[in-house]
Amino acid sequence: MYTLIMNKPIGIFDSGLGGLTILRGLEKAMPSENFIYFGDTAHVPYGSKSPQTVTNYSLQIAKFLEKQNIKFLVVACNTASALALDTLVKNIKVPVFGVIEAGCCAAVHKTKNKKIAVIGTHGTVKSSAYKKLLNVIDKNIKVAQIACPLFVPVIEEGWHKTKAAEIIARAYLDTVKKSGADTLILGCTHYPIMKPLIKKIMGSVHLIDSAEEIAKQVKKVLQSKNILKKTGASNTVFYVSDDAESFEQKAAQILGRKTGKVNLKKL
Amino acid sequence: MYTLIMNKPIGIFDSGLGGLTILRGLEKAMPSENFIYFGDTAHVPYGSKSPQTVTNYSLQIAKFLEKQNIKFLVVACNTASALALDTLVKNIKVPVFGVIEAGCCAAVHKTKNKKIAVIGTHGTVKSSAYKKLLNVIDKNIKVAQIACPLFVPVIEEGWHKTKAAEIIARAYLDTVKKSGADTLILGCTHYPIMKPLIKKIMGSVHLIDSAEEIAKQVKKVLQSKNILKKTGASNTVFYVSDDAESFEQKAAQILGRKTGKVNLKKL
Repeated sequence: MYTLIMNKPIGIFDSGLGGLTILRGLEKAMPSENFIYFGDTAHVPYGSKSPQTVTNYSLQIAKFLEKQNIKFLVVACNTASALALDTLVKNIKVPVFGVIEAGCCAAVHKTKNKKIAVIGTHGTVKSSAYKKLLNVIDKNIKVAQIACPLFVPVIEEGWHKTKAAEIIARAYLDTVKKSGADTLILGCTHYPIMKPLIKKIMGSVHLIDSAEEIAKQVKKVLQSKNILKKTGASNTVFYVSDDAESFEQKAAQILGRKTGKVNLKKL
Repeated sequence: MYTLIMNKPIGIFDSGLGGLTILRGLEKAMPSENFIYFGDTAHVPYGSKSPQTVTNYSLQIAKFLEKQNIKFLVVACNTASALALDTLVKNIKVPVFGVIEAGCCAAVHKTKNKKIAVIGTHGTVKSSAYKKLLNVIDKNIKVAQIACPLFVPVIEEGWHKTKAAEIIARAYLDTVKKSGADTLILGCTHYPIMKPLIKKIMGSVHLIDSAEEIAKQVKKVLQSKNILKKTGASNTVFYVSDDAESFEQKAAQILGRKTGKVNLKKL
């Protein structure tokens, strides 16, 4: 029975392309695992949408992945983790893990001055999901939250190494600097792609990259449940809700490899 | 009978906020008209979505507006005009008018060297809708099409007067300059908001602002059909498909006045 569960894939979803940084981290940490990735390209971006709408889309995707017989669900989208996680946990039978928990645990572990900053989309910041969870873990932690909504389009256009990106990043990160935080959570799956630039601007501040953290933690959970697939060939299947062709092109850039056929699944 | 039709509102829709520049133009040109504006904020942006998806959303909105008893439908969104206009004309009983026709007619009238450039979203450029229509009007016109996908997020964040916006604009518009066009169509409803910056960079090139052009042309059509409402108080009703509160705030900035209550209508 365990062998059977082991071979089932891990489901992972995001509003679009950003979650591929998380998938990349998971594949690297668990090279024999099978994955199903769902990118909700018909509804991207989630960051500017209402909690009800984001929850509705997330639940539809989670139900679809559950039907594909997954053993574990990773919510790779920060906005969906912030707004829909409770609903998913209540309505989905397999264990659900969101990027926010992963980022918060790692940040609390790192900070020395108990000042943590979080950057993300409007939706993530407005939800205060990081702040709430950080203060559940330690109520003395001061949290600064800064929305950086231009980072995602800049990254999706491949402009993250330009002078324009640097000006935009300096404007946003100036607020982070003023907060005195010694630890900065990259609270959006796209942001690790801008990590070199953020590192250059933030200097000695610790950067928490959700892709790295979630991979470590998911692996630990699967090991503890004895359902980690440790050997044999792996496979990743891709689904999107719109424009599979454009996803295939852009995904290859983020993943550093081809995706193979991307399946279209309208929601 | 004519009086009755006259009093019916003009329906106008866009993927989100951008169409408000068109609404502003229409209200200015026809101050006694009634309008119903629909912003598809649950699905914004259309620019990166597939033709099927954009057509599907557009048709749902047009059917909804038809039920509100409109006398005329203005497709204020360039992407929807580019991808869905034929389907709308076939399926909607009232006359349908898209921003693209308006922009093309004006540009052909203005150009002297028969070289016209168009800037827009990925979706608009990929559809070649401007190029096709310009060449239907005059097959000798040379058309350069340049996608400027970062303009919309920059404008929606209110960053259009920053140094970053200027660097981004110069990078895109450099390609327009190289085309030798003497006329540039702002092929996205957001772009008129960046007009001062675009004007500064483009110098003597004629800028075609769809909001101004479509207002002139819709007025002409209504006059010719004898259904223009010329006197009396006017009224504009707003619908969005998600997050009415955030729309209300941002809309006031673009319109330069309050919208009043914004109604939520899920699609």
